[in-house]
Amino acid sequence: MTKYAIGVDFGTESGRAVLVDVADGREITSSVYPYSHGVIDEKLPLTEKEILLEPDWALQDPEDYLRTFQTTIPAILKESKVDPADVIGLGVDFTACTMLPVKEDGTPLCLLPDLRDKPHAWVKLWKHHAAQPEADKINSTAVRMKLGWLDRYGGKISSEWFFSKVLQILDEAPEIYKAADRMLEATDWVIWQLTGVETRNSCTAGYKALWSKREGFPDKTYFKALDPRLENVIDEKMTRNIQPIGNRAGGLSEQGSKWTGLLPGTAIAIANVDAHVAVPAATVTGPGRMVMIMGTSICHMVLGEEEHIVPGMCGYVEDGIIPGYFGYEAGQSCVGDHFAWFVENCIPGRYEREANERDIDIHQLLEEKAAKLRPGESGLLALDWWNGNRSVLVDVNLTGLLLGATLATKAEEIYRALIEATAYGTRMIVETFQKNGVPIHELVACGGLPEKNKLLMQIYADVTGCEIKVTASKQTPALGSAMFGAVAAGGNAGGYNSIYEAAQNMAHLKKEVFKPIPENQKIYNELFAEYVLLHDYFGRGENDVMKTLKRIKVEAKHVE
Amino acid sequence: MTKYAIGVDFGTESGRAVLVDVADGREITSSVYPYSHGVIDEKLPLTEKEILLEPDWALQDPEDYLRTFQTTIPAILKESKVDPADVIGLGVDFTACTMLPVKEDGTPLCLLPDLRDKPHAWVKLWKHHAAQPEADKINSTAVRMKLGWLDRYGGKISSEWFFSKVLQILDEAPEIYKAADRMLEATDWVIWQLTGVETRNSCTAGYKALWSKREGFPDKTYFKALDPRLENVIDEKMTRNIQPIGNRAGGLSEQGSKWTGLLPGTAIAIANVDAHVAVPAATVTGPGRMVMIMGTSICHMVLGEEEHIVPGMCGYVEDGIIPGYFGYEAGQSCVGDHFAWFVENCIPGRYEREANERDIDIHQLLEEKAAKLRPGESGLLALDWWNGNRSVLVDVNLTGLLLGATLATKAEEIYRALIEATAYGTRMIVETFQKNGVPIHELVACGGLPEKNKLLMQIYADVTGCEIKVTASKQTPALGSAMFGAVAAGGNAGGYNSIYEAAQNMAHLKKEVFKPIPENQKIYNELFAEYVLLHDYFGRGENDVMKTLKRIKVEAKHVE
Repeated sequence: MTKYAIGVDFGTESGRAVLVDVADGREITSSVYPYSHGVIDEKLPLTEKEILLEPDWALQDPEDYLRTFQTTIPAILKESKVDPADVIGLGVDFTACTMLPVKEDGTPLCLLPDLRDKPHAWVKLWKHHAAQPEADKINSTAVRMKLGWLDRYGGKISSEWFFSKVLQILDEAPEIYKAADRMLEATDWVIWQLTGVETRNSCTAGYKALWSKREGFPDKTYFKALDPRLENVIDEKMTRNIQPIGNRAGGLSEQGSKWTGLLPGTAIAIANVDAHVAVPAATVTGPGRMVMIMGTSICHMVLGEEEHIVPGMCGYVEDGIIPGYFGYEAGQSCVGDHFAWFVENCIPGRYEREANERDIDIHQLLEEKAAKLRPGESGLLALDWWNGNRSVLVDVNLTGLLLGATLATKAEEIYRALIEATAYGTRMIVETFQKNGVPIHELVACGGLPEKNKLLMQIYADVTGCEIKVTASKQTPALGSAMFGAVAAGGNAGGYNSIYEAAQNMAHLKKEVFKPIPENQKIYNELFAEYVLLHDYFGRGENDVMKTLKRIKVEAKHVE
Repeated sequence: MTKYAIGVDFGTESGRAVLVDVADGREITSSVYPYSHGVIDEKLPLTEKEILLEPDWALQDPEDYLRTFQTTIPAILKESKVDPADVIGLGVDFTACTMLPVKEDGTPLCLLPDLRDKPHAWVKLWKHHAAQPEADKINSTAVRMKLGWLDRYGGKISSEWFFSKVLQILDEAPEIYKAADRMLEATDWVIWQLTGVETRNSCTAGYKALWSKREGFPDKTYFKALDPRLENVIDEKMTRNIQPIGNRAGGLSEQGSKWTGLLPGTAIAIANVDAHVAVPAATVTGPGRMVMIMGTSICHMVLGEEEHIVPGMCGYVEDGIIPGYFGYEAGQSCVGDHFAWFVENCIPGRYEREANERDIDIHQLLEEKAAKLRPGESGLLALDWWNGNRSVLVDVNLTGLLLGATLATKAEEIYRALIEATAYGTRMIVETFQKNGVPIHELVACGGLPEKNKLLMQIYADVTGCEIKVTASKQTPALGSAMFGAVAAGGNAGGYNSIYEAAQNMAHLKKEVFKPIPENQKIYNELFAEYVLLHDYFGRGENDVMKTLKRIKVEAKHVE
């Protein structure tokens, strides 16, 4: 009898459920729910009076997550005609850190009538960027107190992270902080809603909330130093009971069964994160092979057997990706976004017309033209910092650079230079891991870009000198969540006893492999040496012109 | 009785004659002749078999110059109904160095049937760039022999200059070198054709052919060291009789009279150069006020009473611009060209559509959008080296740089940053002159850009901190040539006895003055400091990445 598992992938704009065959990971069907309130960044929805948000805010409506379950799971059951009794497990993955304050029974504060018009009562989405002062305070306090845990995060944490957001709530809306019985990741909250059981996953706890398996959370003296009211935040608003990913969170509740049409008691996995859940779905369950989730940005993940301090990574967490390994994470904040910016702002009308006439996408046209160039032929070199540098410099105040332009420079040459710049950025990350004891010998790519742009993939292979394989699934995170669902069900129920087993059976790669071309590698080695020179000159303080320009820019905008 | 003078301005694509009133410089009428063969850069015209040209070649047909006289002067006489007897003088200006080999009687070699299919027999236009190896040899030989004259040219001469072109003819077509009785500037050649008298002007001799009033040409030992066959080039192919600009070359010949409809004997001025002749037409006949001829590139000219070595200028020549002064020249090789490149290659279709809908020029649309930005607000900084750097670095192998881009950067912000970059380039030139003893306290602009772009002019004023005035004439070089024509005629004939007198009466400025705005200056001072840092880092050898990229680019193009 065929058994099935469901993975639910909560993205920034929508949630997607995928039904897969547990035996081989084959995707049977899927369904998408576009969030009715999407990203809330201008004003709160459904309030009587208009509540406007400050710049850099990004909220979500938790009911959109429940509507995702209520809409997509019935849809895939109906579409596939699969018997709910044959669906043995469900897992979810989420953007992170996406967090919210709730009451003891799990009710989000923003659903309480008297708090509905308070922005701080809502879900703070991962890209809520208004907590930079709080992140700065968290970092400087840890540096001042000489706390070692900061090293696990490359020496600096981000405004996107859990305690930056918590501290912002406390700073700006102490009544919300006080009203919250719990603060938690949305991914843990949706599992709570499905099972009726409150759990916390090791992945977000480790990567976003400063927890580690060996040391737990930072201690009270640290939180007290941040703000005396925060001294007992862990015991008052969180929990010290962190469960490793791969565990079973519980069985589907009666309530969850009504929402979804699945049977009560169906195994529900401990919550997880989109990027991290993609790793086993990309066939990676051990060291040496780095997974790149390539979309608007790139998330780089690699497993290690030992603990290493690697400068400028986003973090490493024991059991954070695959139980039994240290999961190392790094990132580039501007990849697909970079090309989208370029196409939106720098492509002459005649290119648009050519693409229209030939009925192809403008990216496709640019790829075609750029593919005709040899490496080095454009004479251009760029630094891929249009949205700052996440790894290895961890500096949001760095900006983009294009060098080498002449009066003969064409759009496709700049486009190719921007692709190459992101490839150099990835090579910088790969080499930083390698130099610091985390081996990498192969790259596995998933996400939207590998599907869309073969030229980009070949350039990444040529620049890094690594073979690149691509996941067979186009919905890698959802597949990964389904795999964790099958593990939560366990071998006896027709699932698997470990994520290793699940990966062996359910995760697949395409046959196509992008192999480095030696003559291209030779040229890119030369160009990369120049990239490194510029990277260090502008990125490590020798010339702080980018920061000076940002300061002048801010001042210019604030002139009355 | 009203007296008139004619100025003929030989440009790159066409020749233009302007008839002006000698009393006040008022322009009566003008006529343009587009050269029938334009710039010859692909194949020779009118040959039996196809003769293709190498890359970087740029030739012209000397008959196009004669057709300019034959077409435009009769046209302006007819149009204006002016009696030729009232036209007292004629002057010309030309691009330079634009040179040709001729027989003793002035016949261009390319008009001889047996040499017509030899590219080296034709006119080499100023932008013929195929003589770089020869320029390198001229420079290195002078450096090796420790010859002081190289200092007069900022330490390096260009592939565009006279002896680079002569040496290329000798290297590649010794039979043409041998067949030439004379090698001369096209500007001197057209005066010869009008008067029947061979003369050489001090301006091109000084700026392009290494001559100086005090030292003459480099001596024979130098030319012999370049190539033994070149030892006697001055005496065999040129003349040591150099006439100061402002002199009368002769009277119009019978032949010239038939061509033009002017009376035989009409005073013809010594030949001159487009940029230099514009200086008195911009009211400048003494030190302190720098003239900028602003078009595709900028030519900067200033007069000095003393001799100074200024690093990176194009050259200084005693009597080269105005008799009695040292004429200093510097340049930026990419200004209008820069904006044209940007509009051609980097403007999104929606901007084109907006300009079309509003029926305005795309440059006008960009200017309008860019004018809404405050200085510094874009966060961008550029180095204006898309076509190398002429002054003060004298390095064609430098390339463009844009720094500070983010995902919010818009086309009009880049456009403004490119304008600002060219303004910083001008400030660098102004300050280099000032630091080296050549005072500058005001700028006078002429050419196409000041008419077209008010924002640009204001930015130049804000960046340099100098007031900028603009010439009243839109055809400044032609007016300047007419002024020299009036001087050639002399006071007794109803003209003037000196260019000073002519300038006082015939040259005018607009009332509009661009004055520095103190709050903008403050911000631009900060930004300029950052520009200087990048300028020196990339331009003075600390990081030669631009040259490395150019080398890699050349290698990439030559891979089979």
